[in-house]
Amino acid sequence: MPKKIRLGILGGGGDSLIGVLHRVAAFINDNYEITGAVFNPKFEDSLAFAQEIDIPTNRIYKDFDTLVEEEMKLPKEERIQVCSILTPNFLHFPMAKKLLDNGFHVICEKPMTTTYDEAKILQGALKKAGTVFAVTHTYTGYPMARQMREMIKQGALGKIHKVDAQYYQGWINPIIHDPEKRKTTWRLNPEKAGISSCMGDIGVHAFNMVEYTTGLKVKKVLCDFNYLYDDNQMDVDGTALIRMGDHIKGVIRASQVATAEENGLAIAIYGDKAGLRWEQENPNFLYVLKEGEPMQVFKPGHPYNSKLSLDGTKLPPGHPEGIFDAMANIYLGVAKAIRGEKYNDGEFPTMLDGVRGLNFIQSTVDSHKKGNVWIDMD
Amino acid sequence: MPKKIRLGILGGGGDSLIGVLHRVAAFINDNYEITGAVFNPKFEDSLAFAQEIDIPTNRIYKDFDTLVEEEMKLPKEERIQVCSILTPNFLHFPMAKKLLDNGFHVICEKPMTTTYDEAKILQGALKKAGTVFAVTHTYTGYPMARQMREMIKQGALGKIHKVDAQYYQGWINPIIHDPEKRKTTWRLNPEKAGISSCMGDIGVHAFNMVEYTTGLKVKKVLCDFNYLYDDNQMDVDGTALIRMGDHIKGVIRASQVATAEENGLAIAIYGDKAGLRWEQENPNFLYVLKEGEPMQVFKPGHPYNSKLSLDGTKLPPGHPEGIFDAMANIYLGVAKAIRGEKYNDGEFPTMLDGVRGLNFIQSTVDSHKKGNVWIDMD
Amino acid sequence: MPKKIRLGILGGGGDSLIGVLHRVAAFINDNYEITGAVFNPKFEDSLAFAQEIDIPTNRIYKDFDTLVEEEMKLPKEERIQVCSILTPNFLHFPMAKKLLDNGFHVICEKPMTTTYDEAKILQGALKKAGTVFAVTHTYTGYPMARQMREMIKQGALGKIHKVDAQYYQGWINPIIHDPEKRKTTWRLNPEKAGISSCMGDIGVHAFNMVEYTTGLKVKKVLCDFNYLYDDNQMDVDGTALIRMGDHIKGVIRASQVATAEENGLAIAIYGDKAGLRWEQENPNFLYVLKEGEPMQVFKPGHPYNSKLSLDGTKLPPGHPEGIFDAMANIYLGVAKAIRGEKYNDGEFPTMLDGVRGLNFIQSTVDSHKKGNVWIDMD
Amino acid sequence: MPKKIRLGILGGGGDSLIGVLHRVAAFINDNYEITGAVFNPKFEDSLAFAQEIDIPTNRIYKDFDTLVEEEMKLPKEERIQVCSILTPNFLHFPMAKKLLDNGFHVICEKPMTTTYDEAKILQGALKKAGTVFAVTHTYTGYPMARQMREMIKQGALGKIHKVDAQYYQGWINPIIHDPEKRKTTWRLNPEKAGISSCMGDIGVHAFNMVEYTTGLKVKKVLCDFNYLYDDNQMDVDGTALIRMGDHIKGVIRASQVATAEENGLAIAIYGDKAGLRWEQENPNFLYVLKEGEPMQVFKPGHPYNSKLSLDGTKLPPGHPEGIFDAMANIYLGVAKAIRGEKYNDGEFPTMLDGVRGLNFIQSTVDSHKKGNVWIDMD
Repeated sequence: MPKKIRLGILGGGGDSLIGVLHRVAAFINDNYEITGAVFNPKFEDSLAFAQEIDIPTNRIYKDFDTLVEEEMKLPKEERIQVCSILTPNFLHFPMAKKLLDNGFHVICEKPMTTTYDEAKILQGALKKAGTVFAVTHTYTGYPMARQMREMIKQGALGKIHKVDAQYYQGWINPIIHDPEKRKTTWRLNPEKAGISSCMGDIGVHAFNMVEYTTGLKVKKVLCDFNYLYDDNQMDVDGTALIRMGDHIKGVIRASQVATAEENGLAIAIYGDKAGLRWEQENPNFLYVLKEGEPMQVFKPGHPYNSKLSLDGTKLPPGHPEGIFDAMANIYLGVAKAIRGEKYNDGEFPTMLDGVRGLNFIQSTVDSHKKGNVWIDMD
Repeated sequence: MPKKIRLGILGGGGDSLIGVLHRVAAFINDNYEITGAVFNPKFEDSLAFAQEIDIPTNRIYKDFDTLVEEEMKLPKEERIQVCSILTPNFLHFPMAKKLLDNGFHVICEKPMTTTYDEAKILQGALKKAGTVFAVTHTYTGYPMARQMREMIKQGALGKIHKVDAQYYQGWINPIIHDPEKRKTTWRLNPEKAGISSCMGDIGVHAFNMVEYTTGLKVKKVLCDFNYLYDDNQMDVDGTALIRMGDHIKGVIRASQVATAEENGLAIAIYGDKAGLRWEQENPNFLYVLKEGEPMQVFKPGHPYNSKLSLDGTKLPPGHPEGIFDAMANIYLGVAKAIRGEKYNDGEFPTMLDGVRGLNFIQSTVDSHKKGNVWIDMD
Repeated sequence: MPKKIRLGILGGGGDSLIGVLHRVAAFINDNYEITGAVFNPKFEDSLAFAQEIDIPTNRIYKDFDTLVEEEMKLPKEERIQVCSILTPNFLHFPMAKKLLDNGFHVICEKPMTTTYDEAKILQGALKKAGTVFAVTHTYTGYPMARQMREMIKQGALGKIHKVDAQYYQGWINPIIHDPEKRKTTWRLNPEKAGISSCMGDIGVHAFNMVEYTTGLKVKKVLCDFNYLYDDNQMDVDGTALIRMGDHIKGVIRASQVATAEENGLAIAIYGDKAGLRWEQENPNFLYVLKEGEPMQVFKPGHPYNSKLSLDGTKLPPGHPEGIFDAMANIYLGVAKAIRGEKYNDGEFPTMLDGVRGLNFIQSTVDSHKKGNVWIDMD
Repeated sequence: MPKKIRLGILGGGGDSLIGVLHRVAAFINDNYEITGAVFNPKFEDSLAFAQEIDIPTNRIYKDFDTLVEEEMKLPKEERIQVCSILTPNFLHFPMAKKLLDNGFHVICEKPMTTTYDEAKILQGALKKAGTVFAVTHTYTGYPMARQMREMIKQGALGKIHKVDAQYYQGWINPIIHDPEKRKTTWRLNPEKAGISSCMGDIGVHAFNMVEYTTGLKVKKVLCDFNYLYDDNQMDVDGTALIRMGDHIKGVIRASQVATAEENGLAIAIYGDKAGLRWEQENPNFLYVLKEGEPMQVFKPGHPYNSKLSLDGTKLPPGHPEGIFDAMANIYLGVAKAIRGEKYNDGEFPTMLDGVRGLNFIQSTVDSHKKGNVWIDMD
């Protein structure tokens, strides 16, 4: 195994959950070492956090610009190779842009940017940079999500004609009904959260799973949002009709007011030969529905799975994988790409997934605002 | 217990599955006796079938008109009281109309009529007749579907803001991809099946469950159908966005090409206090999602259930109820109504359910044809 | 179809749940008519009940002996052909014995007798009578229980080496902890309930499923009972180790104090090629575990099922069967046997099942009393 | 946060799965750094592996004795504090013994020793050493397993009267039926695997879960093993009746020939107030059965859970935990103990769990060999 990849971390300090998730994911397959970081807005917090997690403090920087500046002074073989961007959403774009412009690889939390325009600019920057860029649509890292993609690619479903994806949460329910709270929650403030709450935060994951697993593109979107009070018109719920090609239709359903639902991402795909169903909260069970045959339940780690799926399984069947493992699989794919090793198509979500996601969010907002009309995606 | 109710049967002879279902349902609670019938188009078949199931043949009639004519000659205390209409769809309307006009009670298979106009005419006829009229939206007979309705009525969900209903089957999949079969299957022939295949046959059940359980009315519909081949434009799949009032939105999803799905009717309803989920293929499990509490699983027969639910449970908890029991519960409700006994609101689906169903089917077709625009329901 | 079979009913009047279950089961396939009965101990109650369910009262008898006496006077082609015994347990034996001695067919509720000795006497009586005798181990009537039996018979599991059956209920829990109630509940009174409560009532069902599905016989039993209070030593819980032949072992677990469990009968069988799992509360799902392959989920009504299973399914896949349907399937098998028609092996549980059941109950009691030693079954 | 704990690793090099599991678990909560190791029997392999996972090689030792010798020369504040023993089973005892005798903390893979006698010796050594000792019964690290323990401790079940634990795997099935393979598999060779295969490897986990969750001790065991061929008498299946006190009984079922089962550890516990059910392959769902109430489904991360459970959850509800997270929770508990911080009772399995486990294995073997008699546990 080659030397560990030098990883920079932006954000994710203190009690940040996303910070833990990325650090563990980076660790799991022994590919990364944290070389530098700006964990927190305040320098002293960053330093303290570095000490807390026992990372050398010499390359903890006071801010992002300093990090880039100082690292660029280092010889290439010492310099941070890849940065993980875990900051608030509005910082994703400027950070990613500057990193790309300076030749870094990037792992960017979702949403990649806050607008579709920024996403397209970033896409151009990546083209020039020629580095590796990953967006952490974490759920694509589950072995069974990967198995869906591979089975469809191998033709197990035949011609696809129907897609149905759901992402139901209930967490905003106790907030939205409280006039004070719904004013102050950042997720419901367009200036902080971007143009959409529900579609932008979770609907986009369901959308990504649809394109990731089917290998098809959504071509048209017609969307209806729901907001529960006129004094806050950010969507907390929405349904998007989608068209993916000739006679291929479907629906993407997302909600933050599906009361007491936790993290109900689910997808069902049907073709002329077979169907597939998968749910994020039971991620190790993939239901395969074949015309005229008993339903099958695929599980991770069995030789009957595809290489892409098996590469993301560490332990024998029956040892449950979780969300940390899913993210670790994405970091593994990125590591292979950075090292120029061969990796599986689909091993990590790319710039294209990021751009498509912003295109989708923009399209749903446009559709809703224009009175629930069809919007062509690019 | 009063004497058994005199039941006439129209259709349902020979190997008819719907025939078995209704006869068993009528029998289960000891309320009905089959007094007369036109089981089959051919008189000799009707007679043979009557003998086969050991029913006196003296009031087996050669056709529907004769049945009405002859029964009307009998004194009221001997005459058939209620007729179950199990014939092909296009006969439902004329039969129901004539029965009402002659003062009979009616149990009508679904769809009540083939057009919305007919449904409204029938509604008028019932108003004049003042008899009991039930449409067999069978799934409302399940104890846990009834429990949903009662919990919502009692306020367990608070103010409802989100509804999601699904009815996924795959049975047309092997037909639709075969150019010959898709020409010859009656369900895909608008002359025989009416204006819609998927929404008309199963989407309407999902719609009915939405209104049955919530006690709310769908006000607007925007629908997109899918047909897989241009040479047959009957919908085999469709998704309808719905609006049920101020900030109450939802979606109804139906498919006959959800490959290898069997009879996947499912409903989820969310309010500001709690949510409910239920699936027809596991009908004895009702999932209750309360804000901040562990999910609960309600099952039939427990005293914690509502009266409407308990009235539809015959055996102690843990003895699975099936579809026959659901239909039997509807027959039980009709029997109470015919006898003038007190019955629970919601104990059987009424003319209004039938009219609403046709209104919904018409609205989805209109929405699709006009380019997926919002259609106001009446 | 030949004329309906003349059915006599013993017990099951009034609000009796077992009465409803048998009447519906007898009705469902159009094979039986209730010709005579002693529904209740008091004659006037029997008459009233007959009127309530609208059955002619002329052959409602004042007691069982009268029923036999009077029916025997009738010509054979008018006489009751088969009697269903639904009375308290201690009456099963004398009634069944007399019915057999007079040449009647018998459908007997479970337990067939209260002692093993009685069971063997009955077996002798049947040999002489040469009539049809069924014991209503109802759960064998489920299409998926039947499918297990057929798959094993066809060799799908290879050589069986492990069996595990469970029947967990919790209903006695609120009784057993109340000193008064545990004295007065008939089920816990050996004079009324026989030598065992838990094994006698439900363990025996699990045992029956083991032998029914595997086609093998239990040869040895080692059992430990649990009673929770010394003042009532009837078993409310017990576990039996079993041996079914050379290197074929297993366990039967039963409890009436598995708090808040409803009717948790479940069975798992493993052979060198595959395994099977089934649960009574989700009776329409059969889990097939094949070495090295994804698990399969079999459901009723599909052509991939065996004839025995399909003969017990009335509606298309996705329409849940329940306990009434399971009992109806047993009545259907009995009807075929009475009429001398060809029927499937396993279509109804026979005298042999009854005898084996009593042998098992006696063996578990003996094993427990002798200090948990191995008891050979006959 | 204090400095990281200096961790030594014994075994677990190369492709070892248990190695990955422990390294990730040690990393997840930022408490440990790997300071020294003997990863492999061959020194050069150990060195290579250290380089592969990018750990300084200066304290990679040629063998275990050298590690102890050299580390003891270091000042205490530099010395390895705790060693994780991941070697083949027969090395656990001598390594653990020597480590304790030299004052190290120990994390020992399961089984702690190969004999009960060794276990007791180790217990004595720990008493002298006064250090922290953990045995990795990993499944106790799941948040919902911990929740069971706490609910029972808080009295949610009332007085326990029934326990049922299962551990079913099928992995030996394809081996056991092959005369060559069953001779050569180390797990079936008593010289390498100890006195028991099935009970020793997995039955003991089920036993541990019983004692861990209930807080009660098994007092007596009666066990029947199954081996499928006379030429290899190691148990591949077994059932143990257990007694845990006055009128508290239960059963522990384990199998390695439950064909195509993966890792089917499951436990059910019933008391006079309520019952609990949990399955390892769906570890984030805990079923709570309360007398007369709907079943509840507890999930990790909700405030309704106990502190012990919540301390082992990192992400919000709906983000599945897996086996790595369970092991990480155990490492977290050990870290607290090593640092002298307050930790929850039950936060990691201790020497006592190890001793009890060996006592159980020995007792099952004794019971089987003596003809399935009751054996008193110490």
